[in-house]
Amino acid sequence: MRPELLARVLSLLPETSATPELARFYALLRDYPQRGGKGIRSELLLASARAHGLSESDTGWESALWLAAALELFQNWVLVHDDIEDDSEERRGRPALHHLCGMPVALNVGDALHAYMWAAVGKANVPGAFEEFLQMVYRTAEGQHLDLAWVEGREWGLRPADYLQMVGLKTAHYTVIVPLRLGALAAGMAPQDAFTPAGLALGTAFQIRDDVLNLAGDPVKYGKEIGGDLLEGKRTLIVLDWLTTAPDDRKAIFLDQMRRHRADKDPAVIDEIHRWLLESGSVEAAQDYAQAQAAEGLDLLEKALADAPDAQAAAALLASVRELATREK
Amino acid sequence: MRPELLARVLSLLPETSATPELARFYALLRDYPQRGGKGIRSELLLASARAHGLSESDTGWESALWLAAALELFQNWVLVHDDIEDDSEERRGRPALHHLCGMPVALNVGDALHAYMWAAVGKANVPGAFEEFLQMVYRTAEGQHLDLAWVEGREWGLRPADYLQMVGLKTAHYTVIVPLRLGALAAGMAPQDAFTPAGLALGTAFQIRDDVLNLAGDPVKYGKEIGGDLLEGKRTLIVLDWLTTAPDDRKAIFLDQMRRHRADKDPAVIDEIHRWLLESGSVEAAQDYAQAQAAEGLDLLEKALADAPDAQAAAALLASVRELATREK
Repeated sequence: MRPELLARVLSLLPETSATPELARFYALLRDYPQRGGKGIRSELLLASARAHGLSESDTGWESALWLAAALELFQNWVLVHDDIEDDSEERRGRPALHHLCGMPVALNVGDALHAYMWAAVGKANVPGAFEEFLQMVYRTAEGQHLDLAWVEGREWGLRPADYLQMVGLKTAHYTVIVPLRLGALAAGMAPQDAFTPAGLALGTAFQIRDDVLNLAGDPVKYGKEIGGDLLEGKRTLIVLDWLTTAPDDRKAIFLDQMRRHRADKDPAVIDEIHRWLLESGSVEAAQDYAQAQAAEGLDLLEKALADAPDAQAAAALLASVRELATREK
Repeated sequence: MRPELLARVLSLLPETSATPELARFYALLRDYPQRGGKGIRSELLLASARAHGLSESDTGWESALWLAAALELFQNWVLVHDDIEDDSEERRGRPALHHLCGMPVALNVGDALHAYMWAAVGKANVPGAFEEFLQMVYRTAEGQHLDLAWVEGREWGLRPADYLQMVGLKTAHYTVIVPLRLGALAAGMAPQDAFTPAGLALGTAFQIRDDVLNLAGDPVKYGKEIGGDLLEGKRTLIVLDWLTTAPDDRKAIFLDQMRRHRADKDPAVIDEIHRWLLESGSVEAAQDYAQAQAAEGLDLLEKALADAPDAQAAAALLASVRELATREK
């Protein structure tokens, strides 16, 4: 995230208190934002605002920056709660917040960050933006529910369509559709209807790329633990595709591991499953699907931006979305 | 909660989906609201609006009802998350939500309800109300943090002042101060500054009464498990006062029980501690303190409402606040 945005996020959060325990609470609020995300969503929002004719010298730019800060706060409260829900070990190279301060305290930190996100939306004061954030939280919670309910119900009898619905609700909205729409709103324009199908395709491509990199990426470039999704028992397109053709004995071994909690999984067996997946052709199939989705999404977006007020900025936006949907890290 | 308000809350929440798992998610969103709370806070808000001159035939009444619905949604998402944080067994006579659907799913349900609360605030469209809700969530999270951090740190070396700070941040704001202020805003008036000290005193009286009833109340009237706070290890004024004078051997027995998780506490020993507390005089001391706070708060509130636009409604508001702060159930 650009330093200017981090400073804006932190400026909203309280810093000091005469009560030591409240000072600690404030430090916990600032923890995830300060770990430094990539700022993918806020950059996309600002690029969309520029393509819609808003420039950094306009008075409306300040509002766009507040919306960008709100998107970053969204991501941070969601990550705090996600990490609890998935019992993730790490986040951005450090222990997940609930491992630092206990689950109850971390849950409450996430709730406070959620409210500070709304404060940033309020500061932006952009007509239509409040409703965008509402819809984004609703869709994210629905997608998250599918994901969590599958884990809760030990559900592996899923079709690729189920995965695509989950990703469409979750990743596609907050990573692509909403940033594109907010950029238009910040520039005082109505978002194009085509942003939704374009964003669904691009967001799906983005998520599948992430799933592929998690299994088959370059550990140095990727920056996260390769195979972590397998340990967390994530339902990915790759795994669901592999399950449709895997030999029964391998399927049984896989399902036995997935029934276990993370700590009870056998690392050697997980490594073997990892190899099966890499050799199965399901990774390439997912990659091909992601590439087709990326191409379709880019095509839709290019058409939607054909008459964008700032053609040069629209071209830059398309280039960075292409980069996003076909990324190597 | 009055049926009209419950209907309004439910009208905001989605109901059906072609995806069975999403239909279940929507049912979970509607679960806590449908269990029926007392509607104390929303009634106080509406009484304050009437005292400030807003009547049910005014067009602004619709906005007041949306704010009341938002307060109910606030309470419901906070309860879902509270029950996770405290690992409560029951809520309103049924298993707590995370016992029905698992912690991760329940956490996510609370997040969605939080967003629907903001939708209700948006629908009210009352100038100043958005900021009230922000401040209410911030203060509640701060008070909750103190409460949770004490549990996390097994902290019993607390003074009554610590308890009063926690209650002031938490209960006093969302139970009294914010409902009074929102009622004024709904009627288009600036909230009186005196609502804050009045609400702090009344909210403190309300919470201490609740703590007293939890230990010494009539089980039939109270409707919750008597002694439940002891099992949950709650830091109450009664317990903190008792700890300052208890004999060392009893204190050691108490602290030994409080170090344990709820399920590992010895019911017979907890019963004995319960008797010690009832015999100690600390219950009466807390009760006296609550009565003095109630009297002070009512006095402040009466003065603040001396010139209220609707004197009859102001008198009714005072009567219901008196009832609240001195309640027997």
